[in-house]
Amino acid sequence: MGIRTAVAGASGYAGGELLRLLAGHPEFELIAATAHSQAGQPVTAVHPQLAGLDMVFAATDPATLADADLVFLALPHGQSAALAAALPETVKVVDLGADHRLRDAAAWSRYYGGEHAGAWTYGLPELPGRRAGIAAATRVASTGCYAVATTLALAPLIAAGAVRPDDVVVVAASGTSGAGRAAKTHLLGSEVMGDLSPYKVGAHQHVPEIKQATGATGLSFTPVLAPMPRGILATVTAVPTGDADPRAVLAAAYADEPFVHVLPEGAWPHTAATAGSNSCHLQATVDVDSGRVIVVSAIDNLGKGAAGQAVQNANLMVGLPETTGLSVFGVAP
Amino acid sequence: MGIRTAVAGASGYAGGELLRLLAGHPEFELIAATAHSQAGQPVTAVHPQLAGLDMVFAATDPATLADADLVFLALPHGQSAALAAALPETVKVVDLGADHRLRDAAAWSRYYGGEHAGAWTYGLPELPGRRAGIAAATRVASTGCYAVATTLALAPLIAAGAVRPDDVVVVAASGTSGAGRAAKTHLLGSEVMGDLSPYKVGAHQHVPEIKQATGATGLSFTPVLAPMPRGILATVTAVPTGDADPRAVLAAAYADEPFVHVLPEGAWPHTAATAGSNSCHLQATVDVDSGRVIVVSAIDNLGKGAAGQAVQNANLMVGLPETTGLSVFGVAP
Amino acid sequence: MGIRTAVAGASGYAGGELLRLLAGHPEFELIAATAHSQAGQPVTAVHPQLAGLDMVFAATDPATLADADLVFLALPHGQSAALAAALPETVKVVDLGADHRLRDAAAWSRYYGGEHAGAWTYGLPELPGRRAGIAAATRVASTGCYAVATTLALAPLIAAGAVRPDDVVVVAASGTSGAGRAAKTHLLGSEVMGDLSPYKVGAHQHVPEIKQATGATGLSFTPVLAPMPRGILATVTAVPTGDADPRAVLAAAYADEPFVHVLPEGAWPHTAATAGSNSCHLQATVDVDSGRVIVVSAIDNLGKGAAGQAVQNANLMVGLPETTGLSVFGVAP
Amino acid sequence: MGIRTAVAGASGYAGGELLRLLAGHPEFELIAATAHSQAGQPVTAVHPQLAGLDMVFAATDPATLADADLVFLALPHGQSAALAAALPETVKVVDLGADHRLRDAAAWSRYYGGEHAGAWTYGLPELPGRRAGIAAATRVASTGCYAVATTLALAPLIAAGAVRPDDVVVVAASGTSGAGRAAKTHLLGSEVMGDLSPYKVGAHQHVPEIKQATGATGLSFTPVLAPMPRGILATVTAVPTGDADPRAVLAAAYADEPFVHVLPEGAWPHTAATAGSNSCHLQATVDVDSGRVIVVSAIDNLGKGAAGQAVQNANLMVGLPETTGLSVFGVAP
Repeated sequence: MGIRTAVAGASGYAGGELLRLLAGHPEFELIAATAHSQAGQPVTAVHPQLAGLDMVFAATDPATLADADLVFLALPHGQSAALAAALPETVKVVDLGADHRLRDAAAWSRYYGGEHAGAWTYGLPELPGRRAGIAAATRVASTGCYAVATTLALAPLIAAGAVRPDDVVVVAASGTSGAGRAAKTHLLGSEVMGDLSPYKVGAHQHVPEIKQATGATGLSFTPVLAPMPRGILATVTAVPTGDADPRAVLAAAYADEPFVHVLPEGAWPHTAATAGSNSCHLQATVDVDSGRVIVVSAIDNLGKGAAGQAVQNANLMVGLPETTGLSVFGVAP
Repeated sequence: MGIRTAVAGASGYAGGELLRLLAGHPEFELIAATAHSQAGQPVTAVHPQLAGLDMVFAATDPATLADADLVFLALPHGQSAALAAALPETVKVVDLGADHRLRDAAAWSRYYGGEHAGAWTYGLPELPGRRAGIAAATRVASTGCYAVATTLALAPLIAAGAVRPDDVVVVAASGTSGAGRAAKTHLLGSEVMGDLSPYKVGAHQHVPEIKQATGATGLSFTPVLAPMPRGILATVTAVPTGDADPRAVLAAAYADEPFVHVLPEGAWPHTAATAGSNSCHLQATVDVDSGRVIVVSAIDNLGKGAAGQAVQNANLMVGLPETTGLSVFGVAP
Repeated sequence: MGIRTAVAGASGYAGGELLRLLAGHPEFELIAATAHSQAGQPVTAVHPQLAGLDMVFAATDPATLADADLVFLALPHGQSAALAAALPETVKVVDLGADHRLRDAAAWSRYYGGEHAGAWTYGLPELPGRRAGIAAATRVASTGCYAVATTLALAPLIAAGAVRPDDVVVVAASGTSGAGRAAKTHLLGSEVMGDLSPYKVGAHQHVPEIKQATGATGLSFTPVLAPMPRGILATVTAVPTGDADPRAVLAAAYADEPFVHVLPEGAWPHTAATAGSNSCHLQATVDVDSGRVIVVSAIDNLGKGAAGQAVQNANLMVGLPETTGLSVFGVAP
Repeated sequence: MGIRTAVAGASGYAGGELLRLLAGHPEFELIAATAHSQAGQPVTAVHPQLAGLDMVFAATDPATLADADLVFLALPHGQSAALAAALPETVKVVDLGADHRLRDAAAWSRYYGGEHAGAWTYGLPELPGRRAGIAAATRVASTGCYAVATTLALAPLIAAGAVRPDDVVVVAASGTSGAGRAAKTHLLGSEVMGDLSPYKVGAHQHVPEIKQATGATGLSFTPVLAPMPRGILATVTAVPTGDADPRAVLAAAYADEPFVHVLPEGAWPHTAATAGSNSCHLQATVDVDSGRVIVVSAIDNLGKGAAGQAVQNANLMVGLPETTGLSVFGVAP
């Protein structure tokens, strides 16, 4: 008998990846997958990659979820708080949405609108000193996809005093699954194949989350939509404070981390190498012309950027080895 | 202590996928990965998706491989026979190449050139009555990628007498990894993205293999290169002999198969849904205009079409459950 | 002062390509582009590739269109007939939709539903003996995209008696723009990239059109959606009646055609090579195993398959050289 | 009788695009296309998109080229100087390579190696005051692809004093054709599809060119390889000096330019919208969090970034309207 798990909002891309991971997890038992408009449909009608999983979407209803030991919320931003409040305290909850990530209520309202529901334990185990808190928590707010990629690249450098926190410039490109599964014209294959385009330029909702997680005080963040289904590549630049080797700082910070790989010198991250995995690949150097530190990180936005990260947090919360049911290796080419 | 496994020719795409599967397999221990020009390089220099696997390519040398209980050969066609002959009989061998698939020496010579090395047990467990033979064998020739996709679609229909074996027309499109990892201009990303193009039209080497495996006597097979890294979609048409429902014939044939899924009526296969898995998705109908039976099958050419199939055979050969270390679910989107 | 042209239904993909061709045409003047829900929007809000074209979508209204010498209808199937009926006879009309292609009213009703509006002159100038009729017509029904690709491959072989008309098998793959610009989940970039999938298997609406244009009497046609924005690759197989060289038959039929290229022996068509052009590339051989004739054709579904073909017809209808404003050369890579 | 033109190095991607533009140019006559290892091959064997162009690659030989009025050099970096020196002064030359772009010989040697061949007139007509110089020159060094995208975004802002020149951060992603047509494993379709990866991080050869063209004094430039055949998207950030609206500065600078489009407010550039065209699309804003100016520009790396730009320069050099034979509109989707 495994730990009973359920996924609310399982018809989206992060939800589908959660189902894949949970169905293959050796200790978790998947007891329910809920959806809104797809309730009553077979899971495989929405996620054909799960052929062989004989399950029907239930309606997203607290009673269905309360039967689980552990619930994952993969809902649109703003919908987690009410549902979570309706679940017993004994049910552990990992929220993949943004509702409970920010400690700054004003920042929440500015970027997401509405009233802030309050912060939960922030679920990025690789941040120094956070693992024990996650393991002890019953409510964990999993990190946003761009925030994972940027924070893992930047946090150790700011923490070590190796770069200034007030002039960070990030350009990060994401595969289209990061934009969700709603049918929108600008996300059609005909539009995105062969195309790169920025969006939400000048004001992205992950900025306050990244600042909170890294200690950055000045941060320009430009997201770009890239012609691939999965993957985030974040190029993070900052001004060094001295002569510290940024690669060495990162290598020291992540020496014992199973999912964060500082690549051998000269090798730069490829998003494709992280597809389907919970890994983050990092490399860093100092630009010869400008003197800026440049760090590049790659993740699978649905893996370490969403479902994988959530399962990693859940493993900690229930006392399992952190890597259970997760892959270090990507599916490539 | 697991079963000791090694991969010869591990620097190609099928080899890389084998390493991924073996490194994550709960019963197999990966003791060696060999290569030709890449010998001496870290595995991750060639396969960045395996970051975290600390292994260096050895030279492809019988002594290195003889130390394993089980050896996978992922070599170019024509190179398996000599290497296999140099391995002790006690070492079990799965060959992903074509050397030992055909019983017809003349067909081998016509399509591959050179002298035929002799047939081994043919490794497609879903063919009726073959499982026991594979389980008992010490040498197994794993099925070719196009042959897997076509044979799973066609063999039950011919076996049931539901279609004529003498007028089968197949058009099958493959992702680029099927063309290998050698640097060739026509395989550059700039050339293949946005492009569909047929190749080897009128004479493809998988034709005699498909005939042997299915009993087809007349078979036109046209392969097409498609702009995606992985996946094969085979459209198989044949002339019905009567009124049998082709979907029902397939559903009956594969009712107990863990990796072959006849999709619900109205759902047609997607290659993306099989990516990273060992599954084959099938659907069939009768064309209203021509009366032909049309069966479409989708696989991951590196999964069920190569490395996954090979591990499935290996599991049988060493007495493990056939599904050990393999995924039924695809990584999508 | 050029010939005054207008496009009805200009917000779709074929409509956008028409606008591109007309805006660059040396003899045509673009006076109006109409749309339904996008009426009142700048054309560039929908078609950013036309930046520099200062035009606003008008509503699709006969009065607006009646002001033109030549009107292109790029409307959803079933909507052309009523609009065309409301235009003066003096306005020449090219319909890119299906409404007026079929002579067989029963076939129309079966595949499209509703009442048949009657056949117009069929607009495929490369069919023997059709050019004069197109040049003399005031109403022309332009060929469907799959029908162009298949008919150009097949018609000369049937006309020459080189293949039997009763056992033709076609598998044709199209880029996603062929499925239109409506926001549908299964057409999202996340779904189609990395994916091949068939659709409308067993009953496709282009079958009666192809039969009518080629004389085929038995035709199995399976369409496949391919991960690229543009392009159709049709693999057409048929049973030869004798020893005629199919490539020679095609080369003779198209010797004087500016847009149809039978490739040098050994070279097979690439859809990417036709992108943005009005060309069709062809190659043919006889399959060594089955003896079937295999012809492969490639077009740009929005070029020769839609907007290019329509402009070619329009050029004929107004007495211009057929190639005016059209490109023989593709944009590749 | 048109102006006689020839292309040296016509077997690469920029060379192929030049041939396409020249073959469709109303005033230029294409008399020769030269190549190195492909000499003696039909042009269409290398560039199948040019089916219908009946020309064979000549060897790259000054005598062949001296017969033209105008020669385009599309050679690997370092090979233009010697060939240009062997051509008569009466032959006008546009070099698409880097040999003659930089005025700083030391920068040339540092990034390209070898001895500097000396600077020619720098061919970016949209830079203030440069058109007349290009029109008067017989030797023009066309701008590099990344330099076009970055310079058009940045130069007017520095010239207007709207941003500081000493803290510019650029991240620019390019389609794979920018990496050339040589067969390299890391450029295979299997490797690049689904992948984003940076390269030459920390030291890119376009940095001194961009500094020279824009007046930037501190510039961090990180290039990224993107999974598409064509297109560059450059995200350029800089520190504002005051309250100037960056979009207004750009709109004023390019008000009369036919090929540079500052998009309507709220619309951001798409690389796909520029494919096949000579256009550059721009948009700018001020980041609400960091206060940085963010400008994004999109071009076709083979169009405005290479062959289109070269033809634009050539048009000026021979006294034709600058837009002759070039398209403002992209081929999309």
